[in-house]
Amino acid sequence: MDHNRPLILISNDDGFHYNGIRTLIQVAQRYGDVFVAAPAAHQSGKSSAITLDNPVRAHLVEKREGYTAYEISGTPADCVKLAISQLMADRQPDLVIAGINHGYNMGISSLYSGTMACIYEGIMHGVPSVAFSYGVFTRDADTDACIPLVEQVLQRVLEAGGLPQGVCLNVNIPPISADHPLKGLKVTISDLGRWVNEWEKRTHPMGGDYYWMTGEYEMVDEHDDRTDMYWLRRDYATVTPCHIDQTDHQSLGQIADLLL
Amino acid sequence: MDHNRPLILISNDDGFHYNGIRTLIQVAQRYGDVFVAAPAAHQSGKSSAITLDNPVRAHLVEKREGYTAYEISGTPADCVKLAISQLMADRQPDLVIAGINHGYNMGISSLYSGTMACIYEGIMHGVPSVAFSYGVFTRDADTDACIPLVEQVLQRVLEAGGLPQGVCLNVNIPPISADHPLKGLKVTISDLGRWVNEWEKRTHPMGGDYYWMTGEYEMVDEHDDRTDMYWLRRDYATVTPCHIDQTDHQSLGQIADLLL
Repeated sequence: MDHNRPLILISNDDGFHYNGIRTLIQVAQRYGDVFVAAPAAHQSGKSSAITLDNPVRAHLVEKREGYTAYEISGTPADCVKLAISQLMADRQPDLVIAGINHGYNMGISSLYSGTMACIYEGIMHGVPSVAFSYGVFTRDADTDACIPLVEQVLQRVLEAGGLPQGVCLNVNIPPISADHPLKGLKVTISDLGRWVNEWEKRTHPMGGDYYWMTGEYEMVDEHDDRTDMYWLRRDYATVTPCHIDQTDHQSLGQIADLLL
Repeated sequence: MDHNRPLILISNDDGFHYNGIRTLIQVAQRYGDVFVAAPAAHQSGKSSAITLDNPVRAHLVEKREGYTAYEISGTPADCVKLAISQLMADRQPDLVIAGINHGYNMGISSLYSGTMACIYEGIMHGVPSVAFSYGVFTRDADTDACIPLVEQVLQRVLEAGGLPQGVCLNVNIPPISADHPLKGLKVTISDLGRWVNEWEKRTHPMGGDYYWMTGEYEMVDEHDDRTDMYWLRRDYATVTPCHIDQTDHQSLGQIADLLL
């Protein structure tokens, strides 16, 4: 491999055979050598789940100059962990990118995202990391519409030589069409709303109830122009800087007063 | 049900048949009516995973005055979502508690925790929420040793009428024995360290490699006395206030400079 070219690790949560990861591989190859470690099976909604009770297997799909691809039998987090710690042990990645997810990872929903799990693993291993998601969740989503924006972000991050320590980027791109061209890019915060009507109850033909997860999302304030959801609805792409520190530093004193 | 008593929703990630949840049920019944919605199967390491591709089923295990218990076929997050949105539709819980987990949820590892997922769902639904974890991961862990500390925390939270908006509590309790009595309780931050040597590679008797997740945890700074891990090693229980806001607010300006 030409070590002057950056090494880019790519994963996702939709699995190896989706348009989104194909688009991302295609773009990434312009900027560096590419190493793919993607789940063999669809893994949406897996959050940062890891595989503890079962072994994980890695199947080499393709290896040629500047390109290596593995299918992994685990979760998105497993994929990035296994790639960085084992499969890429000879050379660590310079960048982790995830996606392009079929469907947004916006608002509080990003908590459930396997795509976000990939980049959380990236920053835990000290590697600059960016997730891309497109606002069309169908399998045949035309993720090629995202290419100019993906190029813009990758180019800037690589030119800057990385991202601030402990910070990864959650990039969302609205559905793009002739009627809805992309209007620009905004740096945003995640809306902290909630899902309502989360389940639909049905009865099995042989009897017995079961539930499908479904629901509608309620924003905290749909007029808050700091949020990802505000701008995505207005045909802007958004980038939300994220971290993995779950401590609520602001309430440390209040909790001490309450409990001690 | 006597509506003067608080209604306490209990879930976990180990599943219905572990000592930890039995201890928690026993303690909670002193403070209120109890509603259990626990996973039918072991769900450690499931993070905030949700079940999208399969239906979820709820099996009523027991129902008597002041006590209802369901086994749920999904993840820890599914359990709390289904309980609050469907099974408890008549009366919303006043408190969500999770655990007692067999094994710590400390440092960066809490990102992978199904126990933490339970309380994240709680605060998303506007309910004060507390997770308890004990530093012994074996199935036969004697979680009854945690009872005085669990009582102390529940009593204070119920007396205070809740917790600050959007904040939940991650309580960890070190292994307690005659040689290692509990020294006290500290309010802490999560250590933001990393796992190393995360996989062990083995070869199947019929050929072909597979990997087991394993590893050792490296703290950022083992002398940092603000962290959960520092105090747990010194026989103190810890409580870390947590939130679900993944936005890195501090770097918004820096990222705008980089990308726009």
